[in-house]
Amino acid sequence: MNNVIIINGPNLNLLGVREKSIYGEQDFPAYFESLKSSYPTLELSYFQSNHEGAIVDKLHEVGFSATGVVLNAGAYTHTSLAIADAIAAVPVPVVEVHISNVYAREPFRHHSYLAKNCKGVICGFGLDGYRLAVESLIAE
Amino acid sequence: MNNVIIINGPNLNLLGVREKSIYGEQDFPAYFESLKSSYPTLELSYFQSNHEGAIVDKLHEVGFSATGVVLNAGAYTHTSLAIADAIAAVPVPVVEVHISNVYAREPFRHHSYLAKNCKGVICGFGLDGYRLAVESLIAE
Amino acid sequence: MNNVIIINGPNLNLLGVREKSIYGEQDFPAYFESLKSSYPTLELSYFQSNHEGAIVDKLHEVGFSATGVVLNAGAYTHTSLAIADAIAAVPVPVVEVHISNVYAREPFRHHSYLAKNCKGVICGFGLDGYRLAVESLIAE
Amino acid sequence: MNNVIIINGPNLNLLGVREKSIYGEQDFPAYFESLKSSYPTLELSYFQSNHEGAIVDKLHEVGFSATGVVLNAGAYTHTSLAIADAIAAVPVPVVEVHISNVYAREPFRHHSYLAKNCKGVICGFGLDGYRLAVESLIAE
Amino acid sequence: MNNVIIINGPNLNLLGVREKSIYGEQDFPAYFESLKSSYPTLELSYFQSNHEGAIVDKLHEVGFSATGVVLNAGAYTHTSLAIADAIAAVPVPVVEVHISNVYAREPFRHHSYLAKNCKGVICGFGLDGYRLAVESLIAE
Amino acid sequence: MNNVIIINGPNLNLLGVREKSIYGEQDFPAYFESLKSSYPTLELSYFQSNHEGAIVDKLHEVGFSATGVVLNAGAYTHTSLAIADAIAAVPVPVVEVHISNVYAREPFRHHSYLAKNCKGVICGFGLDGYRLAVESLIAE
Amino acid sequence: MNNVIIINGPNLNLLGVREKSIYGEQDFPAYFESLKSSYPTLELSYFQSNHEGAIVDKLHEVGFSATGVVLNAGAYTHTSLAIADAIAAVPVPVVEVHISNVYAREPFRHHSYLAKNCKGVICGFGLDGYRLAVESLIAE
Amino acid sequence: MNNVIIINGPNLNLLGVREKSIYGEQDFPAYFESLKSSYPTLELSYFQSNHEGAIVDKLHEVGFSATGVVLNAGAYTHTSLAIADAIAAVPVPVVEVHISNVYAREPFRHHSYLAKNCKGVICGFGLDGYRLAVESLIAE
Amino acid sequence: MNNVIIINGPNLNLLGVREKSIYGEQDFPAYFESLKSSYPTLELSYFQSNHEGAIVDKLHEVGFSATGVVLNAGAYTHTSLAIADAIAAVPVPVVEVHISNVYAREPFRHHSYLAKNCKGVICGFGLDGYRLAVESLIAE
Amino acid sequence: MNNVIIINGPNLNLLGVREKSIYGEQDFPAYFESLKSSYPTLELSYFQSNHEGAIVDKLHEVGFSATGVVLNAGAYTHTSLAIADAIAAVPVPVVEVHISNVYAREPFRHHSYLAKNCKGVICGFGLDGYRLAVESLIAE
Amino acid sequence: MNNVIIINGPNLNLLGVREKSIYGEQDFPAYFESLKSSYPTLELSYFQSNHEGAIVDKLHEVGFSATGVVLNAGAYTHTSLAIADAIAAVPVPVVEVHISNVYAREPFRHHSYLAKNCKGVICGFGLDGYRLAVESLIAE
Amino acid sequence: MNNVIIINGPNLNLLGVREKSIYGEQDFPAYFESLKSSYPTLELSYFQSNHEGAIVDKLHEVGFSATGVVLNAGAYTHTSLAIADAIAAVPVPVVEVHISNVYAREPFRHHSYLAKNCKGVICGFGLDGYRLAVESLIAE
Repeated sequence: MNNVIIINGPNLNLLGVREKSIYGEQDFPAYFESLKSSYPTLELSYFQSNHEGAIVDKLHEVGFSATGVVLNAGAYTHTSLAIADAIAAVPVPVVEVHISNVYAREPFRHHSYLAKNCKGVICGFGLDGYRLAVESLIAE
Repeated sequence: MNNVIIINGPNLNLLGVREKSIYGEQDFPAYFESLKSSYPTLELSYFQSNHEGAIVDKLHEVGFSATGVVLNAGAYTHTSLAIADAIAAVPVPVVEVHISNVYAREPFRHHSYLAKNCKGVICGFGLDGYRLAVESLIAE
Repeated sequence: MNNVIIINGPNLNLLGVREKSIYGEQDFPAYFESLKSSYPTLELSYFQSNHEGAIVDKLHEVGFSATGVVLNAGAYTHTSLAIADAIAAVPVPVVEVHISNVYAREPFRHHSYLAKNCKGVICGFGLDGYRLAVESLIAE
Repeated sequence: MNNVIIINGPNLNLLGVREKSIYGEQDFPAYFESLKSSYPTLELSYFQSNHEGAIVDKLHEVGFSATGVVLNAGAYTHTSLAIADAIAAVPVPVVEVHISNVYAREPFRHHSYLAKNCKGVICGFGLDGYRLAVESLIAE
Repeated sequence: MNNVIIINGPNLNLLGVREKSIYGEQDFPAYFESLKSSYPTLELSYFQSNHEGAIVDKLHEVGFSATGVVLNAGAYTHTSLAIADAIAAVPVPVVEVHISNVYAREPFRHHSYLAKNCKGVICGFGLDGYRLAVESLIAE
Repeated sequence: MNNVIIINGPNLNLLGVREKSIYGEQDFPAYFESLKSSYPTLELSYFQSNHEGAIVDKLHEVGFSATGVVLNAGAYTHTSLAIADAIAAVPVPVVEVHISNVYAREPFRHHSYLAKNCKGVICGFGLDGYRLAVESLIAE
Repeated sequence: MNNVIIINGPNLNLLGVREKSIYGEQDFPAYFESLKSSYPTLELSYFQSNHEGAIVDKLHEVGFSATGVVLNAGAYTHTSLAIADAIAAVPVPVVEVHISNVYAREPFRHHSYLAKNCKGVICGFGLDGYRLAVESLIAE
Repeated sequence: MNNVIIINGPNLNLLGVREKSIYGEQDFPAYFESLKSSYPTLELSYFQSNHEGAIVDKLHEVGFSATGVVLNAGAYTHTSLAIADAIAAVPVPVVEVHISNVYAREPFRHHSYLAKNCKGVICGFGLDGYRLAVESLIAE
Repeated sequence: MNNVIIINGPNLNLLGVREKSIYGEQDFPAYFESLKSSYPTLELSYFQSNHEGAIVDKLHEVGFSATGVVLNAGAYTHTSLAIADAIAAVPVPVVEVHISNVYAREPFRHHSYLAKNCKGVICGFGLDGYRLAVESLIAE
Repeated sequence: MNNVIIINGPNLNLLGVREKSIYGEQDFPAYFESLKSSYPTLELSYFQSNHEGAIVDKLHEVGFSATGVVLNAGAYTHTSLAIADAIAAVPVPVVEVHISNVYAREPFRHHSYLAKNCKGVICGFGLDGYRLAVESLIAE
Repeated sequence: MNNVIIINGPNLNLLGVREKSIYGEQDFPAYFESLKSSYPTLELSYFQSNHEGAIVDKLHEVGFSATGVVLNAGAYTHTSLAIADAIAAVPVPVVEVHISNVYAREPFRHHSYLAKNCKGVICGFGLDGYRLAVESLIAE
Repeated sequence: MNNVIIINGPNLNLLGVREKSIYGEQDFPAYFESLKSSYPTLELSYFQSNHEGAIVDKLHEVGFSATGVVLNAGAYTHTSLAIADAIAAVPVPVVEVHISNVYAREPFRHHSYLAKNCKGVICGFGLDGYRLAVESLIAE
């Protein structure tokens, strides 16, 4: 049975609360429940942290056993070599997701330290990007 | 009825012939037929050109009537402001697709002139990226 | 008798249709007719293409016989060394025109590959910039 | 009643111990007590952490209820997009404070990722900068 | 009745004296008289200074009442944020003019701090550029 | 008795007139009077000029006798080494003030030539920044 | 029997007409005939286009069967990733040729997108560079 | 008696597991035991964390009492000003160690924020680098 | 009879008062008198201003009649294109002088806008540099 | 009789010994003998040194009398202004040769200080490049 | 029997004479004798030159037979591609050593052309760095 | 008795032969004799080399005993850290001289590695610059 984990980084716990014009109205736990119900045969789990080190720890924990990881590292996408190294260090395929189209935002959001170590990148599709990422992982 | 067009840019006519270690073994027309058969209720069409101007022309032609455009502009992604302007000039949502993970390749492939005018970007999933793009457009 | 040609580059065929807040409401053919009628003794012609190569071809064609060229190369202004070389290669004076004030827009629109090979630059005056360019050419 | 929280970032727990020629002789808890006594009608609290994620967590915790935040993020000022995003995500006004004049120090201290999301910046006044920041927040 | 002022910046008092291969043989006052006589119904005035502050002062003085300003700020074009701010601060439309084609000269002359706050830019037409600028302002 | 001088640079004479959405509705002389009345025992004076050289002259004049200088050099903040050198040349402590949060504006406003020679920097608090600067100087 | 094709890019149709001080007096067709007569046992053909896409098309057409390609891509040398990708996509060895010494000209002519995908580069020898390139290909 | 602490940063807990072609086959705890046995009169301890803040905390804890610190901060070497400041804030000499030759890897690994605050740097010698660092510290 | 003028720019009126460790103890008027007495047959005059425009004005005034100009433009050396243009506009040879060795100071003092339009540059010799400059001019 | 000298720079004495995958299996003296025998009527000589100054000396020695110089300056191509100046200082035409395609190697090998002073550049053809260079020189 | 050579580059013959605050009081020959006596079973030799070419020559001479090279190339570390190429061209492992902590000095000393071709780098330990380098080579 | 040595770097042995439009008609030995005769009480000597290392050697030789060094390092000015370090390593004052005005030439000649370690810089005065440098040294 496939098991996929969604990892959300800093400030994504505020989804549905923070900057709704950019990130939308829905909170993530509600979305996650509906996503899970769409994939009844998939073991889908969720982790969020505002701590860079905690995301590294989690990637180490799941990176040798999970089928895939959907990672929205938030701002750490643009600053964390530690997470980039963690992705390279584990065999699990990781898909980088962004809710907004980062290329239409500030220049510092155009560069990802993580992307080159990931399987692929999906951005700009709102919460639906998480579904597309799950699709891409179970299509393997 | 939804109608979506896939536009491929320069050198993508050589898919399945050229640099298979990067782009894979399958030629695009065969893939396109299988993709079409997966979406029987969708009007799906295909256009390829090595000419920047021809891609601009095509975007003008379909950009006011199609439901969505899946665009893999190949090398023009990184050099064509004319195509970027064409995307901004038409109301149709455009999804930028790349077969390979461009962020794991040469630095000049990390920057897209098109992305900020697109709905979103999908890269690194091989030909499956086209399917994910179609999914993202009909999920609207 | 003076003969002047106006050459418009990519996406300018959508004038009056596309991004009206930037480029205005008027379509170019209508404007061109009114401009022509203001200069009854001038042979004024018009060419538009979305193809970089076609603009080079046209500059070669008219560049040895016309009195002047008014060139709005659109996005190719910022990316085309081929057009820049074509301007340098022909003896006709070329005036670079932009409808909008490109210096008040994205940074990549601030640099012109063409300008140094042109007689001069006129930008920011809407369609009236074409008239000013014609003025500058017949004032010689 | 106004409630303001002072948040200090990495290494600021060593104030009065570390590099006294730059940061001065006084330890922060002593200063904080004297500051509190100057504003008897203000609810003033204090938090310090060397962990980027803990500062993000704290901003989320207080950012929807406090009157204002005085933030000296120390070195994270120059490296943390996660804290910058957290400031933008909460409605509380945040004032960036630095004890030393960062512009008279190493170039990497001249750039703040946080400043553009803050209400304002105060730097170079030693510990007195915290008082000025409190002043600026209760003057609103 | 329209009133337009031409403001010339540093070293332009030497026109007709200095570097004639770049700027031409004519001195400005003579040109100004002939220009005035071409527009008998226009109130046309002239101001020249080598002082950045004096140009700011003049823009403040005329910027709330004139129909338009034709500004050749000379070298201050490339160095003066103060003049750029002054243009933004007053409601009068300002047209930036350069006698020579600045894009065919040293790289530091390719960037204008002023242009983005102006209505438009005209360069490369010799003294005739001033006439074109007046044309553009009274065509409004 | 403490004597402090407030020096305002280019375009700040238009406060209350110019770009009110950025700089607010109040004109400076009115604010200055109210500020003076808040510090009855302080000798507070005011100088404004649009001329870089005049600001250098004034700093030389007051820099050996005043208790402190509050300097909002406006656009010269970002372009004037002459003022920066003047600050370094005189013993008086100078506090750099900006009405708006310059870090939330155009990139060229993020760099100050003056800051490293000043005692400190205060920005983003509207006209209240002048009061905070005075506070910081008399708190010495 | 060896077959080699010479491909010339934009503006090279004007050889002998355009900028003779840089490119010399001879027109290319005359030179090509004399070159062909020097290699009677070699199948030598010639193609010129001002269109980037047409050069890509031609490289695809000949790239799987020719012995070698001599490519002077003119201005596209410095701007065309599409042609660079086409060279990488076909097995034929390609020799990059420039008539003038591009390193003694404008800086933007010093960088070639194509060179790294070519067998080698020959520049600065006038039309004789085409002969040297043919030599290098048949010497294999 | 000398006491030295070895601090390892993010992902170094995976040594012997992760990317063995770069970092080798041995796990760190086994190496550490053998190193300890080589220095029977030295108090040698070990700490590893994936959290930037935890490394700062540890440097504060040991930095006023240890004889020396051997620090392999992993990816934080290239991104953490907070750790750099912590090294500067404590009196203990710190030796920066890298297992691989970072100068033969990606460019972003060539720059260390920490090095200038350390006693010295040792890189490229595999796990033996830790021994050399210990040597350098007890040789003082 | 030769006539040479020494022009000093901003803050040089404070020589002997300001930053003596950099600029020395002597005030300029005293030095100027002793210099004059060393060259009894030379008409030597002196001008100082803190105003960029005033230096431009002075160069225009003397630039068509003086034998030579010794110019220490102080901070304007590094920021003033207007003075650079003025030097180019007048026929008099200008020698750029700096009291301190600007290359051993802050990076922004390493670049001179003026130097390329001057006859030569002399720096690092204290006030004696003025004498050397006079020597160089009368040696012509 | 034509006389041409081949000058090889640093490390080229190791040809056939060093990094054969890049530079090939043949040692240079053997190649040189075979090349000489191909041009029986040409006086062909050879010089190699690892010393920058010795290459400058040799260029001075032969630069006023030889028909041509074939120069592979090895690493000095990318670092030596002294050799570049020597080429400019002597009248002999110099052809720059590289055995490998430097544009397909590290970025620092893409820039040549010498090229702009040479007649032309030939690179990527292995040892055959020396023959092509000789060809180009005697074709004059 | 192991044989290791220490190669010192420019100005290191002045050790113990030059800039003692940076490089210490000891002259190298004395240090070398004491180092040799610590490794009685090792054949240790020493070479110093101020000539880049002489260091290349020496690397060629010993690079195919020595056990290891300890190289302190001094200033050539930062400028010599010729030495970098020589290290890559010979099979001997080379350890780069610096006496001072180059990362705490001028920025141009932070970059080494040599490091990526060396086995490893040791810097900041004074003359003891040479001992650590010898240790690292015989530990192989 | 004062003793001053003039050191000339690469290609300066060709003075009077090479590029006379830049460097003038006179050969250096002749100039040197006339200079010597102007300073009968000064011990003046001369050294020229095209070898960077030889200039370092010479600076070591004379740097502890000469009164002053006049150094025109030619192209090594812009590339040699080894010479820069040698100047810093010896106590003799060194004056950097250039015959031409390097700031009016190619950008790479605008930067000197040597200047910050020299007493001062004199450039643009032709051979007379050597005399001025001697003057500056004996004026001490």
